[in-house]
Amino acid sequence: MSDLNPMDLYDHLTVQGETVRTLKAQKAAKAEVDAAVQLLLKMKVDFKRVTGQDYKAGCPPVDSVVSNDHEEAVDGDDQVDPWNVSTSSAKGVDYDKLIVRFGSSKIDQELVDRIARVTGKPPHRFLRRGIFFSHRDMHQILDAYEKQKSFYLYTGRGPSSEAMHVGHLIPFIFTKWLQDVFDVPLVIQMTDDEKYLWKDLSQEDCYRYAVENAKDIIACGFDVNKTFIFSDLDYMGSSPSFYRNVVKVQKHVTFNQVKGIFGFTDSDCIGKISFPAIQAAPSFSSSFPQIFSGRTDVQCLIPCAIDQDPYFRMTRDVAPRIGYLKPALLHSTFFPALQGAQTKMSASDPNSTIFLTDSPKQIKNKINKHAFSGGKDTVEEHRKLGGNPDVDVSFMYLTFFLEDDEQLEKIRQEYSSGDLLTGELKKLLIETLQPMIAGHQEKRKQVTDDVIKQFMSPRKLDFNY
Amino acid sequence: MSDLNPMDLYDHLTVQGETVRTLKAQKAAKAEVDAAVQLLLKMKVDFKRVTGQDYKAGCPPVDSVVSNDHEEAVDGDDQVDPWNVSTSSAKGVDYDKLIVRFGSSKIDQELVDRIARVTGKPPHRFLRRGIFFSHRDMHQILDAYEKQKSFYLYTGRGPSSEAMHVGHLIPFIFTKWLQDVFDVPLVIQMTDDEKYLWKDLSQEDCYRYAVENAKDIIACGFDVNKTFIFSDLDYMGSSPSFYRNVVKVQKHVTFNQVKGIFGFTDSDCIGKISFPAIQAAPSFSSSFPQIFSGRTDVQCLIPCAIDQDPYFRMTRDVAPRIGYLKPALLHSTFFPALQGAQTKMSASDPNSTIFLTDSPKQIKNKINKHAFSGGKDTVEEHRKLGGNPDVDVSFMYLTFFLEDDEQLEKIRQEYSSGDLLTGELKKLLIETLQPMIAGHQEKRKQVTDDVIKQFMSPRKLDFNY
Repeated sequence: MSDLNPMDLYDHLTVQGETVRTLKAQKAAKAEVDAAVQLLLKMKVDFKRVTGQDYKAGCPPVDSVVSNDHEEAVDGDDQVDPWNVSTSSAKGVDYDKLIVRFGSSKIDQELVDRIARVTGKPPHRFLRRGIFFSHRDMHQILDAYEKQKSFYLYTGRGPSSEAMHVGHLIPFIFTKWLQDVFDVPLVIQMTDDEKYLWKDLSQEDCYRYAVENAKDIIACGFDVNKTFIFSDLDYMGSSPSFYRNVVKVQKHVTFNQVKGIFGFTDSDCIGKISFPAIQAAPSFSSSFPQIFSGRTDVQCLIPCAIDQDPYFRMTRDVAPRIGYLKPALLHSTFFPALQGAQTKMSASDPNSTIFLTDSPKQIKNKINKHAFSGGKDTVEEHRKLGGNPDVDVSFMYLTFFLEDDEQLEKIRQEYSSGDLLTGELKKLLIETLQPMIAGHQEKRKQVTDDVIKQFMSPRKLDFNY
Repeated sequence: MSDLNPMDLYDHLTVQGETVRTLKAQKAAKAEVDAAVQLLLKMKVDFKRVTGQDYKAGCPPVDSVVSNDHEEAVDGDDQVDPWNVSTSSAKGVDYDKLIVRFGSSKIDQELVDRIARVTGKPPHRFLRRGIFFSHRDMHQILDAYEKQKSFYLYTGRGPSSEAMHVGHLIPFIFTKWLQDVFDVPLVIQMTDDEKYLWKDLSQEDCYRYAVENAKDIIACGFDVNKTFIFSDLDYMGSSPSFYRNVVKVQKHVTFNQVKGIFGFTDSDCIGKISFPAIQAAPSFSSSFPQIFSGRTDVQCLIPCAIDQDPYFRMTRDVAPRIGYLKPALLHSTFFPALQGAQTKMSASDPNSTIFLTDSPKQIKNKINKHAFSGGKDTVEEHRKLGGNPDVDVSFMYLTFFLEDDEQLEKIRQEYSSGDLLTGELKKLLIETLQPMIAGHQEKRKQVTDDVIKQFMSPRKLDFNY
């Protein structure tokens, strides 16, 4: 016990307190109640020893309440929160530092190997290449899975425009793989309400974007029998269970906390201030009674970009206080803009990355014209000194989308040595992306209104809960 | 125009701006567009003259944004907000001062006469006796009604316990009368989510109280074909239109504003902070598409106790900015505790007033034992000097519940003169309340689960919208 950190101790204590109450309510045998009480008392002593504080139900230890990330957010030059990601390094954000700052765990080779062992499938390239680089409680998910205790997946998207780019697909490509290898239910939240609150957009537009974006998501190949996609503007008003969980979270998070986590100010609208609870609620299986038959004990695994972590740190802080399981997480790195990892992609700048609607010609032109090169200024110099793949955006994009490890390594070596020229590297990327995007467009065309409607209808999935 | 206050000018300007945009969008005749633009410009000049500020869409004049009531709330010794009502005067709160502070209008004899004229019915005793004493825009409601443009009623209750007392019935008795004489739809909000957020109660308890309280409300005689009662915990998750309006309000109210209006602090949970939007939303007809077929232009009239006004000042501030009509209001005074108008009634103190579950014997004992008397210490003195009906709680209660004006006036005179003794006055009140409460209990018994279910099902009412 004493190896646990204060927050874990607190959570265990809360659960044990609940156990004692339940045993008493059920009029369990005296010996059983006594044993549970003894353990509770021992845990309280441990808690006091570790935290220096007395345990009080509903009051987590002071040092470990969700920290004031927003004020700490400038670490070196990296800033990472749900609305801002910036760095001054051409290699991008320093992810090892981020793991320390956010208090998550690195996805190391051991975990990658374990996922492969448990699923019996080779690990996805995003795992092999550290694109999903950080996690929370993934070992716990695997422990339970090995004991036939399953989980569900939850991811989402903020539909701020019709235009989705290849970077937006990263969490969905990976989630689709997780769904395939673990065979579990998946819920996808479209936060159209968030976009309405944050942007100068009408509710109608945000809802329309949610539906349009859902088509691109479905085109990633999700199984309609295992996947529920929902718009907040619709589902919040269609599910009393979902709203009840939103209010539960809202009761257990103060303005001080969201101010610390998200940097809200007194001038922010009350919709923004309470929104984090809406992104938290899908982390609890009871928000989807149609899928989980009201069960509250199906754990949630959230694959998402690391900038979404603040929402789920908050969620994990609240969960034990409202009697729910903490969601586990898998975090991805950011997808760089064509102009380089330190610049920001923008849906309003079509040249900042490859969009899912781009033609083969647009893809070719954009990469040739805009992809930041790690090559040297002249062919002679390049042949002599070699290029730098660590800052070369074409190489970075290949890391995301080229499946063959050997080929990728060969490209890296040849580019570094100068054997491969920038134009040749760009050509390889163009040849990778053109068929991929064309294939996506083909699959998206097949997503009819009827298919969308099926995915977005609250219903039982092909799992027996 | 220039007689209008800054906020009215602002609202008119906003509407006129909308008119101009609509005319242009409809490609109206140039002369018509020009005239509308001319008026708009003139209104902008007026606005600048009155406020000293330039008009900017979406930015209400600085001095008249919802004022910081909470800090001003101590006026003399009266404090009035949704969670606190206190005064040091035995006569109760100074309502004339409150009208000035809240910026509402007095319900004067002219308005009472007009309501009687328009409805063709004698005014309710609550109007005749100044129990409903203040209003906002009631003349506008009557103007429209005279032109066959109808409205709907909205009132509510926070179900914090099963125990309702006679004071809780005041808004419902009056609303029932309004429904009868105007023949309009009525929606009743049970804010079980609010009680969950504010009190140490479970959601299940709050919801159960909502249903139990609804039985007492239905027992007031509402017509099931004209009345929709809803629990927030249920309806929020059953109506995408309702949630959409909640989010609209939440986008247009800042934390600064609710801090000023309701006195929230940074330590309050985000649920409390965003809740005012949920009490605001039923003020807009589009929150009930099943009743109003999606129409947004049916005005709302809210009968409520004056302590609820802060919610609706906020609502009226937001309404024009989200394209909706401001709700009109009718405000009632407070119902005094048996111990006197300056003490607080409490659901946990059964002796603080008459509860709807009290037996005839309990009613008699409570009034005889606890009702604060304005009489003199001895019979001799009382005969000689007379009693004071202004501070006598039994007399106050009779003002609420004795229908006959002449009899009430006779009691007042005889008590003031000393002809009527305190015991005799109390007896008159006991004889008024015993049959009233027994009748209520009888009617409540007839409210079956099936009846409750009917009232609480979202459905079309007997009105053609």
